[in-house]
Amino acid sequence: MAQIEETAALTHLEWDTPLFQTAIAQYEQAVPFADISEGVAERLRYPERAVMLSVPVRLDDERRVVFAGYRVQHSSVLGPTKGGIRYDTEVTLGECAALAVWMTWKCALLKLPYGGAKGGVRCNPRQMSQAELERLTRRFTSELLPVIGPQEDIPAPDMATNEQTMAWMMDTYSMQIGHAVPEIVTGKPISIGGSVFRHEATGAGVVMVIARACERLGWNLAEQRCVVQGFGNVGGIAAHELVARGATVIAVSDVSGGILDEAGLEIDAMLDFAKANGSLEAWESGRRITNEELLELPCDVLVLA
Amino acid sequence: MAQIEETAALTHLEWDTPLFQTAIAQYEQAVPFADISEGVAERLRYPERAVMLSVPVRLDDERRVVFAGYRVQHSSVLGPTKGGIRYDTEVTLGECAALAVWMTWKCALLKLPYGGAKGGVRCNPRQMSQAELERLTRRFTSELLPVIGPQEDIPAPDMATNEQTMAWMMDTYSMQIGHAVPEIVTGKPISIGGSVFRHEATGAGVVMVIARACERLGWNLAEQRCVVQGFGNVGGIAAHELVARGATVIAVSDVSGGILDEAGLEIDAMLDFAKANGSLEAWESGRRITNEELLELPCDVLVLA
Amino acid sequence: MAQIEETAALTHLEWDTPLFQTAIAQYEQAVPFADISEGVAERLRYPERAVMLSVPVRLDDERRVVFAGYRVQHSSVLGPTKGGIRYDTEVTLGECAALAVWMTWKCALLKLPYGGAKGGVRCNPRQMSQAELERLTRRFTSELLPVIGPQEDIPAPDMATNEQTMAWMMDTYSMQIGHAVPEIVTGKPISIGGSVFRHEATGAGVVMVIARACERLGWNLAEQRCVVQGFGNVGGIAAHELVARGATVIAVSDVSGGILDEAGLEIDAMLDFAKANGSLEAWESGRRITNEELLELPCDVLVLA
Amino acid sequence: MAQIEETAALTHLEWDTPLFQTAIAQYEQAVPFADISEGVAERLRYPERAVMLSVPVRLDDERRVVFAGYRVQHSSVLGPTKGGIRYDTEVTLGECAALAVWMTWKCALLKLPYGGAKGGVRCNPRQMSQAELERLTRRFTSELLPVIGPQEDIPAPDMATNEQTMAWMMDTYSMQIGHAVPEIVTGKPISIGGSVFRHEATGAGVVMVIARACERLGWNLAEQRCVVQGFGNVGGIAAHELVARGATVIAVSDVSGGILDEAGLEIDAMLDFAKANGSLEAWESGRRITNEELLELPCDVLVLA
Amino acid sequence: MAQIEETAALTHLEWDTPLFQTAIAQYEQAVPFADISEGVAERLRYPERAVMLSVPVRLDDERRVVFAGYRVQHSSVLGPTKGGIRYDTEVTLGECAALAVWMTWKCALLKLPYGGAKGGVRCNPRQMSQAELERLTRRFTSELLPVIGPQEDIPAPDMATNEQTMAWMMDTYSMQIGHAVPEIVTGKPISIGGSVFRHEATGAGVVMVIARACERLGWNLAEQRCVVQGFGNVGGIAAHELVARGATVIAVSDVSGGILDEAGLEIDAMLDFAKANGSLEAWESGRRITNEELLELPCDVLVLA
Amino acid sequence: MAQIEETAALTHLEWDTPLFQTAIAQYEQAVPFADISEGVAERLRYPERAVMLSVPVRLDDERRVVFAGYRVQHSSVLGPTKGGIRYDTEVTLGECAALAVWMTWKCALLKLPYGGAKGGVRCNPRQMSQAELERLTRRFTSELLPVIGPQEDIPAPDMATNEQTMAWMMDTYSMQIGHAVPEIVTGKPISIGGSVFRHEATGAGVVMVIARACERLGWNLAEQRCVVQGFGNVGGIAAHELVARGATVIAVSDVSGGILDEAGLEIDAMLDFAKANGSLEAWESGRRITNEELLELPCDVLVLA
Repeated sequence: MAQIEETAALTHLEWDTPLFQTAIAQYEQAVPFADISEGVAERLRYPERAVMLSVPVRLDDERRVVFAGYRVQHSSVLGPTKGGIRYDTEVTLGECAALAVWMTWKCALLKLPYGGAKGGVRCNPRQMSQAELERLTRRFTSELLPVIGPQEDIPAPDMATNEQTMAWMMDTYSMQIGHAVPEIVTGKPISIGGSVFRHEATGAGVVMVIARACERLGWNLAEQRCVVQGFGNVGGIAAHELVARGATVIAVSDVSGGILDEAGLEIDAMLDFAKANGSLEAWESGRRITNEELLELPCDVLVLA
Repeated sequence: MAQIEETAALTHLEWDTPLFQTAIAQYEQAVPFADISEGVAERLRYPERAVMLSVPVRLDDERRVVFAGYRVQHSSVLGPTKGGIRYDTEVTLGECAALAVWMTWKCALLKLPYGGAKGGVRCNPRQMSQAELERLTRRFTSELLPVIGPQEDIPAPDMATNEQTMAWMMDTYSMQIGHAVPEIVTGKPISIGGSVFRHEATGAGVVMVIARACERLGWNLAEQRCVVQGFGNVGGIAAHELVARGATVIAVSDVSGGILDEAGLEIDAMLDFAKANGSLEAWESGRRITNEELLELPCDVLVLA
Repeated sequence: MAQIEETAALTHLEWDTPLFQTAIAQYEQAVPFADISEGVAERLRYPERAVMLSVPVRLDDERRVVFAGYRVQHSSVLGPTKGGIRYDTEVTLGECAALAVWMTWKCALLKLPYGGAKGGVRCNPRQMSQAELERLTRRFTSELLPVIGPQEDIPAPDMATNEQTMAWMMDTYSMQIGHAVPEIVTGKPISIGGSVFRHEATGAGVVMVIARACERLGWNLAEQRCVVQGFGNVGGIAAHELVARGATVIAVSDVSGGILDEAGLEIDAMLDFAKANGSLEAWESGRRITNEELLELPCDVLVLA
Repeated sequence: MAQIEETAALTHLEWDTPLFQTAIAQYEQAVPFADISEGVAERLRYPERAVMLSVPVRLDDERRVVFAGYRVQHSSVLGPTKGGIRYDTEVTLGECAALAVWMTWKCALLKLPYGGAKGGVRCNPRQMSQAELERLTRRFTSELLPVIGPQEDIPAPDMATNEQTMAWMMDTYSMQIGHAVPEIVTGKPISIGGSVFRHEATGAGVVMVIARACERLGWNLAEQRCVVQGFGNVGGIAAHELVARGATVIAVSDVSGGILDEAGLEIDAMLDFAKANGSLEAWESGRRITNEELLELPCDVLVLA
Repeated sequence: MAQIEETAALTHLEWDTPLFQTAIAQYEQAVPFADISEGVAERLRYPERAVMLSVPVRLDDERRVVFAGYRVQHSSVLGPTKGGIRYDTEVTLGECAALAVWMTWKCALLKLPYGGAKGGVRCNPRQMSQAELERLTRRFTSELLPVIGPQEDIPAPDMATNEQTMAWMMDTYSMQIGHAVPEIVTGKPISIGGSVFRHEATGAGVVMVIARACERLGWNLAEQRCVVQGFGNVGGIAAHELVARGATVIAVSDVSGGILDEAGLEIDAMLDFAKANGSLEAWESGRRITNEELLELPCDVLVLA
Repeated sequence: MAQIEETAALTHLEWDTPLFQTAIAQYEQAVPFADISEGVAERLRYPERAVMLSVPVRLDDERRVVFAGYRVQHSSVLGPTKGGIRYDTEVTLGECAALAVWMTWKCALLKLPYGGAKGGVRCNPRQMSQAELERLTRRFTSELLPVIGPQEDIPAPDMATNEQTMAWMMDTYSMQIGHAVPEIVTGKPISIGGSVFRHEATGAGVVMVIARACERLGWNLAEQRCVVQGFGNVGGIAAHELVARGATVIAVSDVSGGILDEAGLEIDAMLDFAKANGSLEAWESGRRITNEELLELPCDVLVLA
């Protein structure tokens, strides 16, 4: 029988960045408390598969540039892997690997029959036109074809990708398969099969957690005074939900700073205003405060959105 | 229209090691002489696809260790990619990428309808038993399944892999497909569909080149005096071929040193002897010389095998 | 950049019959009110795909005749296309195209994730034996195989086709696939997976609409006096449903003429009678009236089945 | 047993144009001489399958236009169908059907294991840019996917389509399949797997037939005096081949008119000249004649290219 | 027209054992009462398909032994076949065929859209190590691949196979398919997708039937005195369920004999005891009786588990 | 580690008939001389897979009878299995298994990359009409679909099956696949892709062996006097070939008895006569002898066809 120095087997792999090491260090803390064999524990220290792809794209000025695309799949034992696709100049193999590991834990904590994945393209999406982003997304999806699928790996929106990106991915995949396959991505537009309430899910979920916490503490949520930092997709919806459940939101903030009204803010009117004007900068009622002041306001519930 | 800084697009990718930079630097020297568009040139600077796989293997002592497997495919435009699978502690993404690039050029120079690929597993094959190597090979092949195939990518033997390794790969692939698929690998044993003469190909090829060179120089190969350094799969066969074409081999060497006979050595008897005894150490006729002396012998043809 | 005369692009295509022009003219009236881009509008003016098939059939007298089969698929963007298969001497490409277009609108109005299709065979089903119809259906299904499927296009019964036709289609398709695929057709017999209540669905649906209308008008359906023209699959079931909801059905008609009883007819007994005797011709209670008289009876609800 | 009026079964189908009727009338003349059953004869009167496709294309001016695409497959009994793809404003179902029928006979006369097909897009290719033609070809190929394939139906160049068109079709098909599939089209560029000598095949074939005819007539081809009308892909190569076999070409013509030299023309020099200058208009030696004069020259062999 | 002696057509087939004849004899008794055609009746007399497989297994002592594996599928008309996989020295084609027939009737009586199947391996599982059973199961599953599938045929645990066996089958199948396919087997562990309550289903089902019987008889289950023979997976759970519904269990038995307490036994404590000690042998309260005495006890409900 | 009594593992399997035991006994005699491991030897003692199928067929009198079909595949290691399909009342699992084993050895002796298979249907083909045989063959082929294929298992004609049977099998298989697949069977008609010379192959092969034997013996075949028993597909063609190589055929026989002419028979005229008249019964030249007399004629070469 041969002797193998186990510790040397996988040192310094290409995904071994500080972020990935953080993810694995957290895992090592948890392993002793889990009732799993060393064989299983060892398997979960590494993503099952990582793919790097060259994605050639014709730019609007007719130059042809090749971008690097990534997809890392961590664990497919319980079902398909799933996780976001991000477009960013800092996307690396290590970042995707770390985020894929975390997606596995998120799914496992909710007992969902999924494993974790993450991917993306190293590019600067803010410098690219919509047409360029469409061509990038379609070509990236084509190259991903052998490793994604409703039973294999399901992409989702992430940093700098959105409903439109998912619609392009779904369309490219569906044309290859020969019929509409809405289950290939999550986060697609409702009109082509997306989930109702997905947009509101994160903000509303925050308030569900607050409600549960109040219940355990024996507090009545309707009597609480709340402060919400952030007024976008998460904070704005959380503020709306809090008011809807009877709570008083005394302060919110966005990029333009904070607004305080000890008697409670008119959240729905402010949401309409922010939607129409881009921010709350010109909102006139209430008292302007800095974001720092907001974070130090006395309150029962502080939401960091 | 957006502006994209092309130069930043793909810098510092995970396969960007010194070896890969060497391969690309050679390519950049050749590009100006090739009649290709910048779009095509750009595409060929990057492998199309690279896959990293975790390969869990049960060792003979029942430990479960995870090895890192790689496969890089450089260009599939003209047909399937092909290239070796190596088992070595130094296998990295960058090494596989560089070797895959070179495989594309080798195929292109011979006008073969193939592109280049290369892969391997980071392990120490000398520390592993045959049973462990079989389990490693079979699991690595299983994980490779979505990206290899007779029309997609064809593995071959390379450093520390051989006919047996290819037989395991072919068997694993064939069981998945449901019938024998000999065309999934090259370099397999003749009994299951391997190519006759592949074993002798390199040594015989050396002599074909020598014969061509003589032809151009106006020399008669049958009149040349030859020295061959090395007496294994390449040198031994080259020596045999030289003699078969009428040339005189006056000296050969192997790990045990060199042997000289100005009248010409009995190569075929020496080959039988070496096969039976492991080396030429105990061969008694001729004069023993050092390897250094051999390299400085006056001769017409010197083969460095 | 080249100039293309758009209007000439698709004039006088083979499906461009008066019926198809009617369908498109209706569409053109609706387009200005829909919030869709011209690109989308243009796409929906044409079926995505139309297939004409030659269907060779051995007749009972051993002659071999070739029939023309059709299948037109209008829009597959939201999911599989679906629609009927008709057997008729007047089936043409234009008719199938027009009906496929209308199926898309029907599905869209109910927000079903389906698109429209329609097909059929040009034949005279009344001149054919059951054995000939079976052979025709099975061969037509075989020829359709590359373009139908549970995710691609789902046939349904239509003019001169029925549950038995769908059972033959499902069996032929399932044998090709290798296992039972009930989801390939709708309208199949309940014993092999058909939907309960499909038979009654149209008649019951008529009464659901009447109930809604009453609700809006502030009427009590149980107090209404109803006249039903037709006493088959639609009218008979509608009459039964009206009575079951408390309404009074004062007159019905079938091919044998009308029957009136201002005090309300015994609908369930009449249904049993019609089933046993083929029509209401020999039904003895009530007053015989003509169909024309029936249509002019004073009443609250008139059902034209 | 039911009675079916066979003659009415398939009258006035959508492909029943004068051209198709011509093809079938020729067939009916041949049938009595063929040793085939009526069942087989009947089957061959109709194409097995015809597909009409809507092909949406984005024009260079951003308009979205839908073109009609066609593919008709006549007989697949002996192997895959094959035949050209044409781009023309006059493409119709009937034209494709007639040409598909003729392709079956052409293959059968050469005992090739293929059947006939033909297809195309109704468009004006002379009004379209290369980019528009590429988008048209790629989308048309995508829509054709379920009905073409190396074992099913193999496209080829035809009116207004060429090597480039076939390269686009092959690339689109290959990306869908996941690897290079050169066998999906004939007539592709040699660099991606096209056949050597295909370009010269028609012109050289003309001369092969002439040589056979001379052989039967007991003439010596090398002694014949030849006139060639046309100096392009067919006529130019035929003239070259005639000269290569020793014959004397005394006159040729192109769009600029005819050139006569009773002593024989310098064909190879003229071919170089025409290639460099676009036509023979400025060619100075020999005597200028009209095309009509050329056709009435006394000669042994007249080639109408 | 030829004459065929029908009765001779399928006599003495290899599956024609006494057990299979028993199954068919029962079927013949039922056929006259079923409203089915003779064609359908004839079809159901024979399994649709039976497969015998050689399963080579490496034993722990390195010998290679070949085992015989079986799978018989009786009827796939209504949906996939399903049924157990047994490991036993007495497994034969006839036994599997008979049990497959009975599975069809079981599914049909519950109107489930499934047909019957049964299979197994002829081996002595008590002489085999866990490692040998794993290798046997994985290889048997590989060989079964072309004939099983979630839509074709679904294995389940049976004699000497259990949750672990199903987990190996699912894993082997999933690796072949390329992603987790929990629906390929029933009876798998809950952690990889097994059904909650399957373990308790048989015992609880017995009590559901008793409750229904009481209801029809007008008895109050809570007032009944019950005797349960057997205290394992079926009897133990049945006893627990009877007590949970208020009934009195006066006696139970296991391999160690019976225990009687006219006042009612403490079933839950006994279950805990049996789980901890392997049997009720050392249970001290109640009166020891023989199994024969138990079967003759006066009682309202007697459960033979 | 468990103990397994190997000898008991596979005794008395359903294919274990005297014929199969004969085949295996021959194998056991050969094994000691073969250079193979015990693991390989053990594997080859058993067919890899045997399938029994119920084949429901509608007879001409509308009765529905179920026939038993078989296919046994012995070894697929070197490539697809291949072997005949026989229709006979004596077809059993054991017979098919024995013949499949022998097919493996036949292929191996010729170093063909195939393994052995054999199959058939238990029926009396002489009592069945052509229409019934077609329906039987087509349904049997449909049921075989999951286990045959050009890469998996290739049927051929055998007892009571012929070119027509293979044409039905090929057509049924091709319709399932969607295009012509001539490589699914051997022995099909030349017009749909069968091999030229297959019909003559056995008779001509006999003479090739005779020619080789003469060569070794130093005889001149053209000087030999030959007797041929049988005048059909084998004997008739052998007689023709012998004459074509210059030998003298002095006597032949068929069902009508023998014919002798010491000066040599006019074989080609006799072949034409037999084809026209069904036998040589009315052939007038030569001397009539009995079959027994023929077998005792003095001669150099005796062919038992």
